[in-house]
Amino acid sequence: MALLYKADPVRGQQWQALFAHHAPDIEWRAWPDIGNPEEVEYLAAWTAPEDVAQLLPNLKVLFALSAGVDQLDLSRLPPALPVVRLLDPGITRGMCEYASWAVLSLHRDMLRYRQQQVARCWQAHLLQPAVNRRVGVMGLGAQAQQILATLAPLGFALSGWARSAHQVSGVECYAGEAQLPAFLSQCDILLCVLPLTDQTQGILNRRLFAQLPRGAALINMGRGGHLVEEDLLEALGSGRLSGAVLDVVQEEPAPASHPFWDHPQIVLTPHIAAMTQPQSAFGVLLENIRRFERGEPMVGEVDRSLGY
Amino acid sequence: MALLYKADPVRGQQWQALFAHHAPDIEWRAWPDIGNPEEVEYLAAWTAPEDVAQLLPNLKVLFALSAGVDQLDLSRLPPALPVVRLLDPGITRGMCEYASWAVLSLHRDMLRYRQQQVARCWQAHLLQPAVNRRVGVMGLGAQAQQILATLAPLGFALSGWARSAHQVSGVECYAGEAQLPAFLSQCDILLCVLPLTDQTQGILNRRLFAQLPRGAALINMGRGGHLVEEDLLEALGSGRLSGAVLDVVQEEPAPASHPFWDHPQIVLTPHIAAMTQPQSAFGVLLENIRRFERGEPMVGEVDRSLGY
Repeated sequence: MALLYKADPVRGQQWQALFAHHAPDIEWRAWPDIGNPEEVEYLAAWTAPEDVAQLLPNLKVLFALSAGVDQLDLSRLPPALPVVRLLDPGITRGMCEYASWAVLSLHRDMLRYRQQQVARCWQAHLLQPAVNRRVGVMGLGAQAQQILATLAPLGFALSGWARSAHQVSGVECYAGEAQLPAFLSQCDILLCVLPLTDQTQGILNRRLFAQLPRGAALINMGRGGHLVEEDLLEALGSGRLSGAVLDVVQEEPAPASHPFWDHPQIVLTPHIAAMTQPQSAFGVLLENIRRFERGEPMVGEVDRSLGY
Repeated sequence: MALLYKADPVRGQQWQALFAHHAPDIEWRAWPDIGNPEEVEYLAAWTAPEDVAQLLPNLKVLFALSAGVDQLDLSRLPPALPVVRLLDPGITRGMCEYASWAVLSLHRDMLRYRQQQVARCWQAHLLQPAVNRRVGVMGLGAQAQQILATLAPLGFALSGWARSAHQVSGVECYAGEAQLPAFLSQCDILLCVLPLTDQTQGILNRRLFAQLPRGAALINMGRGGHLVEEDLLEALGSGRLSGAVLDVVQEEPAPASHPFWDHPQIVLTPHIAAMTQPQSAFGVLLENIRRFERGEPMVGEVDRSLGY
């Protein structure tokens, strides 16, 4: 019985050492050295190989090495194959750090001060108390709730929106299409951590921006596919939006010609909000393997019909 | 009986409205319209006028409109005049927001990503867990302790140093000259919120930087006078330090020729970490006036021998 690893080779060595030490019964193999494919029962991967079913006839579980699984193209995987997201506490901590940094950057006018530094201009601007700053999070899953809990002690006025109804202490929750306009109308800073699905593809678009308070700001920590990039440029140009902090773009790596790079109102980072960290993720992955072996439900199993 | 206000005129109008509404017994006067100087018993100011004693013969208290009082030149004030710092909760919240933002900026390599955005380079770098990042705060007063409390939930390894011994839950505390080297040797990120005194003038210098771990980073939220600016440039050039976030400089406003403006490893902001906010500061100031009237000790009275 073997586990095949198909992701970043540097972190692969850390994974391998952890398996060798803590789970010597699971044979470690790293892509492309598959060995006898019939022995591979688990695949731990960022993206799946083509024709998984033919390549790995005895595959029992696909463990995504990420919190989102949109990069996997679920429609091409065997329908009965369990797909499990990686709910790594290290990923969540990374998302919380990035979210706090991005919200504080926008709250404290740091994009403007970045421009002023380039222009050698020493000028202070009035400060809003955090209690007057309304931060709205799109998505209310486990990660979003951790982000909201991290923002709460800073004193922001917090709200959240998701497809289905949620209750989160200290957060005004909105649900479904019907309540989306009411949610948007009160977001000074809108933070997207939605999963990318057919329903959320392109959700950050001109129509949505028009429902935000004038001068609102955007943070996208979801996927590049959530954002209609031309619409953001237009909204920044018209003053509809005042700034954006983006960790993802449609095409990654972003090409040198991308208009976001030198936009003064955009902070662009190379998809670094969170990275799977073998030290914190290993325990979660191994526990799921053991649960599967015992016939118990795994944590983070994807609902193939919903796509997340 | 009158209070003379000598600071930013825009916020002065907010102060005036608050006094008119909540303390109509105290006559409001705004510099330079002093009126009859003999009636002025309180001075609320950022900087004191020259020859305060002669100008305002019946002055009873000088209320600084700032948390630090180094800009006042205490030696030129009448020795018996009480000087009171403004311990505005709005200032403290502003300092905590800025500190969190600056620590996260350095922790998450945001100076490097800022450079990469300019260079149109999409490249992720390995992430350190916060628990491995040692943040040391110079200063352990009320503000510093609030900053440490704000950083704690993010998971950083926290320490603090001050002249005298302190005990702060969850923070490894160091005291005095003797323990300064041990403190410095374990600071990956050093954050200065010391008061500026003869003892702390120029404390952030070449000798101090040499005692930090190689590649450490600096945040100065104290005063420009704490930092020997040439020594910082040298330390960044040699790799001794990796980056700095500075809210203050020796000469403010920083002249256009200042070498910090276009340094890729420096984020420079125009002394905006905290601003006195009349809404939150008014109650604190009025309470101190009432305490003085009742003969009670005021909150934040400066020890003239220590200078803070």
